[in-house]
Amino acid sequence: MSTEPLATAIERLPLVDHHVHGALRHDVDRAALELMLTESDRPGPPGTTQFDSQLGFAVRRWCAPVLGLEPHAAPEAYLARRGELGAEEVTRRLLAAAGVAQYLLETGYQADDLLGLDGMARASGRPVGEIVRLESVLEDLARTGVAAADLPARFHEALAVRTADAVGLKSIVAYRHGFDFDPERPTDRQVVSAAGPWLREVEATGTARVADPVLLRHLLWAGVDRGLPLQLHVGYGDPDVELHRCDPLLLTRFIKNVEPYGVDLLLLHCYPFHRNAGYLAQVFPHVYFDVGLGVNHTGMRSDAVVAESLELAPFAKILFSSDAWGPPELHHLGALLWRRGMLRALTPWVAGGEWAAADAVRVARLIGHDNARRVYRLADDG
Amino acid sequence: MSTEPLATAIERLPLVDHHVHGALRHDVDRAALELMLTESDRPGPPGTTQFDSQLGFAVRRWCAPVLGLEPHAAPEAYLARRGELGAEEVTRRLLAAAGVAQYLLETGYQADDLLGLDGMARASGRPVGEIVRLESVLEDLARTGVAAADLPARFHEALAVRTADAVGLKSIVAYRHGFDFDPERPTDRQVVSAAGPWLREVEATGTARVADPVLLRHLLWAGVDRGLPLQLHVGYGDPDVELHRCDPLLLTRFIKNVEPYGVDLLLLHCYPFHRNAGYLAQVFPHVYFDVGLGVNHTGMRSDAVVAESLELAPFAKILFSSDAWGPPELHHLGALLWRRGMLRALTPWVAGGEWAAADAVRVARLIGHDNARRVYRLADDG
Amino acid sequence: MSTEPLATAIERLPLVDHHVHGALRHDVDRAALELMLTESDRPGPPGTTQFDSQLGFAVRRWCAPVLGLEPHAAPEAYLARRGELGAEEVTRRLLAAAGVAQYLLETGYQADDLLGLDGMARASGRPVGEIVRLESVLEDLARTGVAAADLPARFHEALAVRTADAVGLKSIVAYRHGFDFDPERPTDRQVVSAAGPWLREVEATGTARVADPVLLRHLLWAGVDRGLPLQLHVGYGDPDVELHRCDPLLLTRFIKNVEPYGVDLLLLHCYPFHRNAGYLAQVFPHVYFDVGLGVNHTGMRSDAVVAESLELAPFAKILFSSDAWGPPELHHLGALLWRRGMLRALTPWVAGGEWAAADAVRVARLIGHDNARRVYRLADDG
Repeated sequence: MSTEPLATAIERLPLVDHHVHGALRHDVDRAALELMLTESDRPGPPGTTQFDSQLGFAVRRWCAPVLGLEPHAAPEAYLARRGELGAEEVTRRLLAAAGVAQYLLETGYQADDLLGLDGMARASGRPVGEIVRLESVLEDLARTGVAAADLPARFHEALAVRTADAVGLKSIVAYRHGFDFDPERPTDRQVVSAAGPWLREVEATGTARVADPVLLRHLLWAGVDRGLPLQLHVGYGDPDVELHRCDPLLLTRFIKNVEPYGVDLLLLHCYPFHRNAGYLAQVFPHVYFDVGLGVNHTGMRSDAVVAESLELAPFAKILFSSDAWGPPELHHLGALLWRRGMLRALTPWVAGGEWAAADAVRVARLIGHDNARRVYRLADDG
Repeated sequence: MSTEPLATAIERLPLVDHHVHGALRHDVDRAALELMLTESDRPGPPGTTQFDSQLGFAVRRWCAPVLGLEPHAAPEAYLARRGELGAEEVTRRLLAAAGVAQYLLETGYQADDLLGLDGMARASGRPVGEIVRLESVLEDLARTGVAAADLPARFHEALAVRTADAVGLKSIVAYRHGFDFDPERPTDRQVVSAAGPWLREVEATGTARVADPVLLRHLLWAGVDRGLPLQLHVGYGDPDVELHRCDPLLLTRFIKNVEPYGVDLLLLHCYPFHRNAGYLAQVFPHVYFDVGLGVNHTGMRSDAVVAESLELAPFAKILFSSDAWGPPELHHLGALLWRRGMLRALTPWVAGGEWAAADAVRVARLIGHDNARRVYRLADDG
Repeated sequence: MSTEPLATAIERLPLVDHHVHGALRHDVDRAALELMLTESDRPGPPGTTQFDSQLGFAVRRWCAPVLGLEPHAAPEAYLARRGELGAEEVTRRLLAAAGVAQYLLETGYQADDLLGLDGMARASGRPVGEIVRLESVLEDLARTGVAAADLPARFHEALAVRTADAVGLKSIVAYRHGFDFDPERPTDRQVVSAAGPWLREVEATGTARVADPVLLRHLLWAGVDRGLPLQLHVGYGDPDVELHRCDPLLLTRFIKNVEPYGVDLLLLHCYPFHRNAGYLAQVFPHVYFDVGLGVNHTGMRSDAVVAESLELAPFAKILFSSDAWGPPELHHLGALLWRRGMLRALTPWVAGGEWAAADAVRVARLIGHDNARRVYRLADDG
């Protein structure tokens, strides 16, 4: 069975990257770039470099040629060429070569350093939809001097305004608490009571970071009420995470409680719990998942991660995302490595006559764009 | 090193399917069949089909030819052909082609829709032993109007009667509570005390579903007293499960407490915790495991699951099961995909001279039937 | 891209085995040897043999030729040949063929049956550094009749003396309690209070086994104060372990608390939690890990385990160890299987032009010896 049509189809898939952040606005030096090639927020041990990692090797192998260098260019040469071309041209090239047709941009984190909705649209020449981070909306509200008693109502209003043009919502409750939270909706009285001390702290410190589980539950349920697809950071991330508390299985009761509301839940990244996420996506009609982030950071091993994403979940329940943040190398590699992983997984099945070639192409299209278009109700020219 | 003798041996293995349910008695329509191709008990999102899954693709690839269709037949054609042949013929063909020499049938769930011991023996032409579900025995007893004070003694009696001809027992404590239960045997006083309210509820509602952890522990320990091999549902299953509470590692203390009784514990399915099960099977002489259920539902990826089952556990501690329930496609694919997975795992080891060919055949026989015959004390003619 | 230089480089890597125990001093009979080919401390079911396991097959495949037998020699022939050569010659041959340049020997367990620092140096002809087990130091101290009130100060003194020439420390808190311990340093008052009953028990029974979490935390923090690299048994081990309490993610807060002290933490073995360990090694600069032990016990499947170790962790954060204990077969196979796994993982990446050949060699050197030399400050001729 010829596998060439499959290879061509995967190469040309007009991907919807359903969870991505902005590319960097400005040039960065080596130290800064290295810190963006890891989920760590600390420099590595002296004498080591983040380039000596699966992601670092992938940058040198695949991004170097996009910038006009030989594959496997040394980090020094890569940095020099990056500086020579300038941030704008580097971003333009790497985004163009990614073959992403549409971005759903999560705008909640360190937005000042990154291209926003318009900037990403300009740099990529592609449409960009917005995913609104619930925690950011609440934190913005807290900084306005809202009274605790008014918080529940005011948050619903703020959310409605902030998401008027959004296609989805996102929560980072994984980072702020973990998934071992009470799966029930808190009462307004509980929310007001939790808001009091927190708002006083915000006023005193001038900084707002919501970590109270009652307030986090409030924003999750307000998100459910808003009715847009709700993304949840799951699994692996920076050291703020206590990873054992971010196993998506801990969400089981919350997932059941949300089910009657008809809101889709999208479990993001999920590594190393992606098999658990696949289980949830099989048994709950409103649960979806992807393996973004992990694909980039596992580099050559991402073929295993992508393959493991193709187990329990029906093919209508798996999505593609890069979770790229900052260096456009991540936007580029997220797409490239996922395509590569899909090709590696599906090709032997088609070659062996175990999957029909047309089915394999259809599965790649479902995961690559169709599922995202359906869930987020995107226009077809997406 | 020639791998042909290994391929032939695996293809012809007279399997003992040590945990399986009855095939469907009657024809079903597409909606009903789709619901039996997933562990979900809910329909998928509108516009999606359970045929777009690893299991759905496997049905179309391997079951279609058994029914006289081309591989990869469309779901509509497959359903039409199924209806044309009728349930009896479909079942007869798919069972015959599975090459299973003996079934150990778990008879505890929705038995009315499924072939029983005799029906399965007739449809397959093979001997069928019985695995009795402990929860069902207790629930049947509850419906007889037993008094709480008599429950402990009466359950032992009922279990003796019900299992007079059984080869093993099964518990679904994973579904009803999870494995985070007190690993000690409850006292009769505790059992009577827990039985009171439950029996009143059974009387009031007319339905009996045991979920009280004291009663569940009582039936587990009564099962241990009965002395037959005791199967435990582990890991992945329908949405009743809270999967993080079904990691077999949570059974560690219970396993240690059971050890002096000389009763074998068989951890069923285990996905995605099959590596954890393999560890338990290595360190505890009375612990065994299989990767049934997951093999079917991961389709082409089942080769990874089967390979992962061949890590820590000694080869005398791994068994084969399909965990098929309902559509005889599941009985067929459970055997076919396990054979395929074993062949995929063992062939390169033999080809590379890293395992002796005779050893590989012996391991396939241990897992395929010998271990089950030893544990369940089955007659050699299977 | 030629992969021959990579194969040659991996074959010749002068490994630093950064966590290993002594080889057996004496000949053993079959029953004793079988018990040392499993992490179980119980004989298997009657009629089964530990030779029917991944490790057993690996012994027959790779150790048999080192003893002058054909590959896949039967266990009986293997045992006979072992007896014929004698323990000393068997050890000499298997160590020599392992190609290990330096051993870091953990000396805390059943040292009487095993070669010590000098014995291993003589048998291997290679330098041997010492890793001191913290629990053993405390237990030795307890047997001297120390008063509870003096324990904190006396333990610091004893540790200083005992580790004067050591290159690292080790804790088995995983075995004695699990990782769900209070991550804060206990006060001396708490330590004294916990020491009282324990020391009375030691005096009464004449045996010392520390399992009190306060005392275990005391020795961990005393280890941190000592300033040497600190190894932690993680994951899979003998049945003393409650494996779900040994997920390294449970160490997250302890890891954060240790960070300011500048002490490196080395997560040993880690199976089946090695992906979790890789995450910790990425985000925390002072966390390292290896997949020793699991590599031996998964035999032909160790290529999967080694490959999975090459995901999130930067290559400067992964180490090699065998965790061999007792039969020198384990010392031999630990090195052989790890080399084989690295070769299997890296070769296709180099062959496909996805990693530069020189990078692959460099990664093998980092993991095989350079990282250990840096972390333990070993001499270059190590």
